[in-house]
Amino acid sequence: MASNKGKILTRRDFLNQVGKVGGAVAVFGAMDTLGLFGSSVSANSDFRAPKKSDLTSKKIGKKVVILGAGIAGLCAAYELGKAGYDCQILEARERTGGRNWTVRGGTTETEIGGVSQTAKFDKDQYFNAGPARIPQHHITIDYCRELGVPLEVFTNTNETAYFYQENVGALANTKVRKQVIKADIRGQTSELLAKAVNQTALDMPLSSDDKERLLVYLRREGDLNASFSYTGSSRRGYKELPGAGLAPGTLDSIYSLSEVLKSEMANHISSEYSFDQQVLMFQPVGGMDAIPRALEKQLPGKITFGAEVQEIRQTAEGVRIVYKGKGASKEITGDYCICTIPLPVLKNIPADFTSEMQNAIKSIGYATTGKIGLQFKSRFWEDERIYGGMTTTNMDISQIWYPSSGYGTKKGLLVGYYNFGGNAVSLGNMSLAQREAHALSQGAKIHERYKSEFETSFSLAWHKIKYNEGGWASYSASDRQNYYPILNKPQGRIYLAGEHLSYMTGWMSGAFESARIAVSDIHEKVVKESEKVTTKVG
Amino acid sequence: MASNKGKILTRRDFLNQVGKVGGAVAVFGAMDTLGLFGSSVSANSDFRAPKKSDLTSKKIGKKVVILGAGIAGLCAAYELGKAGYDCQILEARERTGGRNWTVRGGTTETEIGGVSQTAKFDKDQYFNAGPARIPQHHITIDYCRELGVPLEVFTNTNETAYFYQENVGALANTKVRKQVIKADIRGQTSELLAKAVNQTALDMPLSSDDKERLLVYLRREGDLNASFSYTGSSRRGYKELPGAGLAPGTLDSIYSLSEVLKSEMANHISSEYSFDQQVLMFQPVGGMDAIPRALEKQLPGKITFGAEVQEIRQTAEGVRIVYKGKGASKEITGDYCICTIPLPVLKNIPADFTSEMQNAIKSIGYATTGKIGLQFKSRFWEDERIYGGMTTTNMDISQIWYPSSGYGTKKGLLVGYYNFGGNAVSLGNMSLAQREAHALSQGAKIHERYKSEFETSFSLAWHKIKYNEGGWASYSASDRQNYYPILNKPQGRIYLAGEHLSYMTGWMSGAFESARIAVSDIHEKVVKESEKVTTKVG
Repeated sequence: MASNKGKILTRRDFLNQVGKVGGAVAVFGAMDTLGLFGSSVSANSDFRAPKKSDLTSKKIGKKVVILGAGIAGLCAAYELGKAGYDCQILEARERTGGRNWTVRGGTTETEIGGVSQTAKFDKDQYFNAGPARIPQHHITIDYCRELGVPLEVFTNTNETAYFYQENVGALANTKVRKQVIKADIRGQTSELLAKAVNQTALDMPLSSDDKERLLVYLRREGDLNASFSYTGSSRRGYKELPGAGLAPGTLDSIYSLSEVLKSEMANHISSEYSFDQQVLMFQPVGGMDAIPRALEKQLPGKITFGAEVQEIRQTAEGVRIVYKGKGASKEITGDYCICTIPLPVLKNIPADFTSEMQNAIKSIGYATTGKIGLQFKSRFWEDERIYGGMTTTNMDISQIWYPSSGYGTKKGLLVGYYNFGGNAVSLGNMSLAQREAHALSQGAKIHERYKSEFETSFSLAWHKIKYNEGGWASYSASDRQNYYPILNKPQGRIYLAGEHLSYMTGWMSGAFESARIAVSDIHEKVVKESEKVTTKVG
Repeated sequence: MASNKGKILTRRDFLNQVGKVGGAVAVFGAMDTLGLFGSSVSANSDFRAPKKSDLTSKKIGKKVVILGAGIAGLCAAYELGKAGYDCQILEARERTGGRNWTVRGGTTETEIGGVSQTAKFDKDQYFNAGPARIPQHHITIDYCRELGVPLEVFTNTNETAYFYQENVGALANTKVRKQVIKADIRGQTSELLAKAVNQTALDMPLSSDDKERLLVYLRREGDLNASFSYTGSSRRGYKELPGAGLAPGTLDSIYSLSEVLKSEMANHISSEYSFDQQVLMFQPVGGMDAIPRALEKQLPGKITFGAEVQEIRQTAEGVRIVYKGKGASKEITGDYCICTIPLPVLKNIPADFTSEMQNAIKSIGYATTGKIGLQFKSRFWEDERIYGGMTTTNMDISQIWYPSSGYGTKKGLLVGYYNFGGNAVSLGNMSLAQREAHALSQGAKIHERYKSEFETSFSLAWHKIKYNEGGWASYSASDRQNYYPILNKPQGRIYLAGEHLSYMTGWMSGAFESARIAVSDIHEKVVKESEKVTTKVG
């Protein structure tokens, strides 16, 4: 059916898909037979999740040890808990969430090889150091709905924000509203294509009716005049805005195609066409950590904090995990283990894995990435008519994020850089004071009041954060072929899960969906064993 | 300075601009001399408005009668109040706001020639019957900031919503995600232009370096492959989404350029490029009427409700307004009058206007436009991954708006049509029950659960709403030339104000800015008269 083109999977569809891949449909068939399906509890929300994804609250008599209370670990415990499993999460930190981490006043962190810093942000000022935006088609949204986590728009595209290209082309070192570049490049390229269409010499695989339709489209797309020329457009804004009374507004002159092309600004536009980064995205109200907090609330007594995993062992009947608790080493046993520890950390933990698995674990690179939160006395960017979104630059800060909440209030917090690769390494290598000074110097090229309004900062480099040591798994095509299938195979009763076990690396949805697969796989195995027992007894 | 390209005016800039047009700079100069500038009170917000726009709280001894408590009337009274004027607003209705009208449970209206309807929406369910979205560059945002009205994003563009073209082309009667059409038309046209660039025969005013740069841009813009062909893109979404485990996702086949062109869907895209309707817009939390309510709060005792204006008279020393209050006719006098009554209503009120003015008033057409709010038991559109935005159709309902708030909650309210011109007339001519049935039938073509989930509706046709009789002033180019300047000239001590006295018709900003001009003009006159008196006394 044509209407299914571009169809996005619902959680129910997802489960069916998981079923095809991981055998969950068979599992649920078996579970139905055993009467294991029950109703779920969505205590904080009116939303009723699809019944098929709700497991029972019966005791199933199996214990699962989960390593890590990030999104994958919390989700696994939450779903296993619904199904009647006994779960225990070991979490090295004193908080849940992992990379889902909202930095607020009082947040403390010491980077590997760094000094301790404590955020001095005002109450209500924060930034999301890890994941910061959710697309509509991700299962993360479903969990927010099920758990009653209120969402608000995260503005991924604000055309009133700027492009700023340092030392590149005709518009170098000039902040230009994104809408200006969009209008000019669309106008100029539509004009060019219209000319080409009208030059009958051109080999173009279109009927004359389609050519007419194309011209209609191009006139609209580019805001072309009657002779298909682009001479300017109110889409780019005005020199003087239309007003009341006798002020019709005046347009400004346009940039030539050559100027726009040389600036390279228009090359940034397509990033907002990405399926995962469309113009409309979402964030939990008050900080991304509302998600792990909501999951944590469903897991009273199930999380051991400050538990740093030291050994991951297999036994004849199950698993044995050695961890450093408060004081001496302790151990915990279980029937199964779900290990969500990021690979750069996991590779250094002694574990009963095959050498093939050990090799795969240590072969996967992780992204280097960093962020800085800058608190300002006033929202000077709102005086510039920027209410959320990002300014995009070719500088090493890469981008400046304006807050997507608290519009019109007094203070505000910008993400002063969010960068990757070499930029993240070099800024990560700076001292905290240097990072702050650098972020302010770069931002001051765009916003006059950047330095005078500044109050306090908090910065981080994910590759230097203990228990993470990277932003997200960064697979090459050959990694996907050579190592990824190995990572996906359980090691006896130990299952890996996390964003690194998905094709949505760097997204919470990867962690959620990966956890659901581990849960399904374990449950399938348990049900099969239970059937064997039943058969024996019968 | 190049960085001023596309510059957007702040409120301070606006005031300067008003100064140039309406003489306010001279006024404020005079006021400074008289010591009339003081500090403003922004009781509900930390925001301090620019001082130059803040008038004094001294009594100035002049009385202004304001006709209409819509945005223009409220703004005029608010600003005049700051300047120490005595104001009285006559409002025909029992509420403020005029076309800024949020329909909630209990809202009652009887259209001209229609029957009475009362909205039966649940608590927290509402729709904005009039203005419903604010762009970042409008002064409306400044007033929200000054008055402490909290804002949230109004999602004007959601690419996950649909295009639906009834009986047009290859994709007729098929709902297609907007992102699919965007990806395909951009891919196909970028491929065409890249081919044209590569055909050296084509006359193209570009250096070879610029051609290379253009090809780089086109590859990104269209997601073209290495040979500059468009063969598909994850931008349009997936047939099967990438998942965790061994699910890399699969793409769906694309639509041909001819299919897309024949569908005419891509012709809708450019509406979101408009400067006033960019992807990012705003709305007050809880309903647009938060704005008039915030203004009203600043004007205790200044508004007479249920006061229908019957005569607008000039006297030797001022103005005299006859109105039908509760019971018999009453009258009120003042030194000046600001009349914000919409022209289709004003034309029938006896007034001491020149025949030239009377003729201008009756010559301006107003837009026909209608909306229906549909409350549903569940947010089935969110199950389809649509969190806000609009579905755009060629049907007479024109569009369906999904709510930009309350994501993930149980119930929801859609705007089932927002249409114009002939469509608004024909739906407006239906009975309330017919409108509801029609909106449901049309919407059910797009959403399966439209009828089964429906609960209750409220509809309106602005051209049939008493005291408005139209959506907004609709000027032709010749109207702007022949009549608009006349409407802008005060009639003795009577000044017109409202969106119809602006180049931002249909927007609240037009009403705000028009009111500010009337206030400035009156104040200028008062200051001049005061100077004359001072001179005499001296």
